[in-house]
Amino acid sequence: MARDTTAAVLLLSCRDQKGLVAGTSDFIYRNNGNIVHADQHVDAEAGLFLQRIEWELGDFRIPRAELADVFRPIAEKFGMQWELHFSDYVPRIAIFVSRLEHCLDDLLLRHRMGELEAEIPLVISNHPDLQQFVESFGPKYHFFPITKETRAAQELKQIELLEEQRVDLVVLARYMQILGGEFVRHFRNRAINIHHSFLPAFPGGRPYHQAYERGVKIIGATSHYVTEDLDEGPIIEQDVVRVSHRDSVEDLMRKGKDLERVVLARAVSLHLRHRILVYGNKTVVFD
Amino acid sequence: MARDTTAAVLLLSCRDQKGLVAGTSDFIYRNNGNIVHADQHVDAEAGLFLQRIEWELGDFRIPRAELADVFRPIAEKFGMQWELHFSDYVPRIAIFVSRLEHCLDDLLLRHRMGELEAEIPLVISNHPDLQQFVESFGPKYHFFPITKETRAAQELKQIELLEEQRVDLVVLARYMQILGGEFVRHFRNRAINIHHSFLPAFPGGRPYHQAYERGVKIIGATSHYVTEDLDEGPIIEQDVVRVSHRDSVEDLMRKGKDLERVVLARAVSLHLRHRILVYGNKTVVFD
Amino acid sequence: MARDTTAAVLLLSCRDQKGLVAGTSDFIYRNNGNIVHADQHVDAEAGLFLQRIEWELGDFRIPRAELADVFRPIAEKFGMQWELHFSDYVPRIAIFVSRLEHCLDDLLLRHRMGELEAEIPLVISNHPDLQQFVESFGPKYHFFPITKETRAAQELKQIELLEEQRVDLVVLARYMQILGGEFVRHFRNRAINIHHSFLPAFPGGRPYHQAYERGVKIIGATSHYVTEDLDEGPIIEQDVVRVSHRDSVEDLMRKGKDLERVVLARAVSLHLRHRILVYGNKTVVFD
Amino acid sequence: MARDTTAAVLLLSCRDQKGLVAGTSDFIYRNNGNIVHADQHVDAEAGLFLQRIEWELGDFRIPRAELADVFRPIAEKFGMQWELHFSDYVPRIAIFVSRLEHCLDDLLLRHRMGELEAEIPLVISNHPDLQQFVESFGPKYHFFPITKETRAAQELKQIELLEEQRVDLVVLARYMQILGGEFVRHFRNRAINIHHSFLPAFPGGRPYHQAYERGVKIIGATSHYVTEDLDEGPIIEQDVVRVSHRDSVEDLMRKGKDLERVVLARAVSLHLRHRILVYGNKTVVFD
Repeated sequence: MARDTTAAVLLLSCRDQKGLVAGTSDFIYRNNGNIVHADQHVDAEAGLFLQRIEWELGDFRIPRAELADVFRPIAEKFGMQWELHFSDYVPRIAIFVSRLEHCLDDLLLRHRMGELEAEIPLVISNHPDLQQFVESFGPKYHFFPITKETRAAQELKQIELLEEQRVDLVVLARYMQILGGEFVRHFRNRAINIHHSFLPAFPGGRPYHQAYERGVKIIGATSHYVTEDLDEGPIIEQDVVRVSHRDSVEDLMRKGKDLERVVLARAVSLHLRHRILVYGNKTVVFD
Repeated sequence: MARDTTAAVLLLSCRDQKGLVAGTSDFIYRNNGNIVHADQHVDAEAGLFLQRIEWELGDFRIPRAELADVFRPIAEKFGMQWELHFSDYVPRIAIFVSRLEHCLDDLLLRHRMGELEAEIPLVISNHPDLQQFVESFGPKYHFFPITKETRAAQELKQIELLEEQRVDLVVLARYMQILGGEFVRHFRNRAINIHHSFLPAFPGGRPYHQAYERGVKIIGATSHYVTEDLDEGPIIEQDVVRVSHRDSVEDLMRKGKDLERVVLARAVSLHLRHRILVYGNKTVVFD
Repeated sequence: MARDTTAAVLLLSCRDQKGLVAGTSDFIYRNNGNIVHADQHVDAEAGLFLQRIEWELGDFRIPRAELADVFRPIAEKFGMQWELHFSDYVPRIAIFVSRLEHCLDDLLLRHRMGELEAEIPLVISNHPDLQQFVESFGPKYHFFPITKETRAAQELKQIELLEEQRVDLVVLARYMQILGGEFVRHFRNRAINIHHSFLPAFPGGRPYHQAYERGVKIIGATSHYVTEDLDEGPIIEQDVVRVSHRDSVEDLMRKGKDLERVVLARAVSLHLRHRILVYGNKTVVFD
Repeated sequence: MARDTTAAVLLLSCRDQKGLVAGTSDFIYRNNGNIVHADQHVDAEAGLFLQRIEWELGDFRIPRAELADVFRPIAEKFGMQWELHFSDYVPRIAIFVSRLEHCLDDLLLRHRMGELEAEIPLVISNHPDLQQFVESFGPKYHFFPITKETRAAQELKQIELLEEQRVDLVVLARYMQILGGEFVRHFRNRAINIHHSFLPAFPGGRPYHQAYERGVKIIGATSHYVTEDLDEGPIIEQDVVRVSHRDSVEDLMRKGKDLERVVLARAVSLHLRHRILVYGNKTVVFD
């Protein structure tokens, strides 16, 4: 019988206290696990300990089905919040898009090239335009027209569809609609947005126009988890590019598109590899 | 007699119209000037033409003393705003500082190494601490204690001193006082500030604390001309550096210091070499 | 009758001498052209003047068909090398690819989104794998198997095909074959390659492995015109990304792919917009 | 009696094997140490485990004087190479310089501002020029003229002086002499150089001239440990800055100076804070 090459990933946080690193690493060691990645962070100000630990299940003595139960007492002893993931589970992504397709296309291509370890069963849009193109890549395209009156009802249907499709992660790939509180709460820490500015500069609409007006010499893009407060969620990744007076608003948009694509893709990849812990309104990114 | 190696620099802006590039370049060519640098920019939206042109005076037929008078009719024909500079004039800088000395020190060292083509006859501070150190580099140190009550009067004295010292450029090298309207107007487009954030993110006080709280993944620094609106002046230069959850507020400050030094130095150098044109609340930087 | 909104672009270089800027700008002005972009560069060491000048043909008095003839005497007076382009001509690109598709895909998507003002009539590959995918985007896919024995003959057929298709620009999008001298000479300054390192570091094969072995902290990508000397051609654009000991060779490849895509796309776009002048083994990029 | 706020830092490497993380963390936990930083890295290819672990000695049960002895059996069990440092030890630096002073000045200023937790008892130079300036900052200046004939003998005297001054770290701040094998071996992993290029591009002399000739679009600087092979030692830190055809060799030098200063300072700071592990010809930087 082939050796199990699956890895387990534990993401945890709790009040900082002595014995935490020893507690988890000893648990894994005593059960014959081989740690392949371990990283931790102490937020001294908040008195918080956060850790990511990943080990191979090949020779591990605790069967996967019992792992959570066996670990629970340790977690409770330290008062941990924790998640346990297995590397052979393939997460399922739904991509939301409006008309600008560069971020969507980028994710579809990365998926095609095997860069994203996930399935993309569906794409949701408030415009019908991209149906044929998207479906040529595989995902089913769902058109949900949105008006002020239908928004709430449509979002409930979207949630239903996403549940039915067992979607783990929602990616807003330049989806130009503001999601309601119910949707946001349903996908807390499981919905990633790309904002086309270096937040907190230029939140809201038309950030490239704002950047042009202000005469900045560098523009940026920001990916963050979606929260009820628009463009205020925990930041996952940011990047920037230099601009000058020679750049028109259109040039900023063009340069910005390349930023948006890569910043969103990095955030999605980090999330899929369980590299992110959210606490307060911040992220710890164990890259 | 040695050939004159001085260069003349013309900075101009006017309504965009045909014949502008031909107008100035032809003026220089007909008078036997050798253009060593020429750059222009058209802001199509504003309908504005901006130009920097630099030429050698060696064989130029118009004596330097008459140059402005001879050029004036051309400028008037096109409705130009213009400045004329000569490369052998050595500008005079006054540096303002409070307690944090890294930007000041950086400028003093660059001056010592010949990187800044300027004189630094004086340093002004609202603290006495740095006197001995500064004066070991040459500049005279002027201590102006500032309280809410004395601010206005002290600023008048500062203006007087700066005039007396024929200061061309005021550099606020982490000077932690807000300057009054009279001072600002007196040195319009001649006072450069360094702000320790990537503006317009985190204006005002304690930007590194704000950045830490917000959990950004990149921090920045911004140099700009001083205007009546705090941290709202025309941006000259910005730069950024990547940070992570591993960085404490102190780390942000430490990394930020290196940014501030280089961003301020670049802005000062661009100004001294007459590379900047201000229009509206923006700059054109002819680098 | 609608006003002609076409622009003319003149790219020229010659020995530096007085009157050059005046010469061309005056020529355009006298004939009622409106200059929308002008930039020049003097390489003082080489004594060389290089210029790009772009003007609208709307009110221009010289008919397009006669423009070259009218300008020729001016060019000859100054000993200029020059090219004249019109903005309404749509250049034709052939993309060469092997198995790694990320750069190809990126260009196809940009074309789809209207970012590249060009046609892509064909893709050439030494592998058959990508045919269906490429043709779903429009271009015809030509499979040219290459062995040591057939290389020379196949390249002649490729040249023939490219001529027949009136191809203006060849883009080597991770094409893993070395092109022969005849091909290279045929497309001198019209064939752009992407090399997956920060040249001149790590030329030749397996640059990511080399970078990993050397333990560099930053990796890069370089786009350049193809010359007989492998990876030695004039550099058009480079960019870099930070890496660390945490990155495996596979991580370098993954991060590098994002660099390669954007660096190649920028180079292709600059070429298509006639922003590049080659001289010696260098480029001047008038962005 | 005040609580001991000193921290201990353990840097170790050994063959990768199970129980390593548990082994060290359990050792610290059982003895009531509070871990404030822990990071590890596995080089899967080399089968090597590397770790940095830092803990407070306040409540630690093992007296500092006995710590090494108590840890030794654990280290031997796993076959570790290891170093133990205490945070209250102030390392001693000697800076070597020739004529270009920017890196030296930068380090002196950082020391003055409290950014470097170290003493700088002496500066060594093959030129007498900077004596007065350096000594105004405190360090003693030692002038060692070097000729081909005297090099070997002078280096022996330098080693002697450095030993006498109990120097922990040698910093070559643009010291333009090649050090002999004996010196290099004596300060293996304790001598840091700054090279003014993005290694491995442009090793050896005049890298800015080489970069200018090659027409690169980005230049860099590299700090590395000194080895017998010139510019081939383990890289600690690199950074880059964008350049263009507008930049002359002098501009490259000027931009490069700012890079060199910050890249060298970061490397020195990382070394002083025991953040670097060297293995093979690479570094692991636990930042």
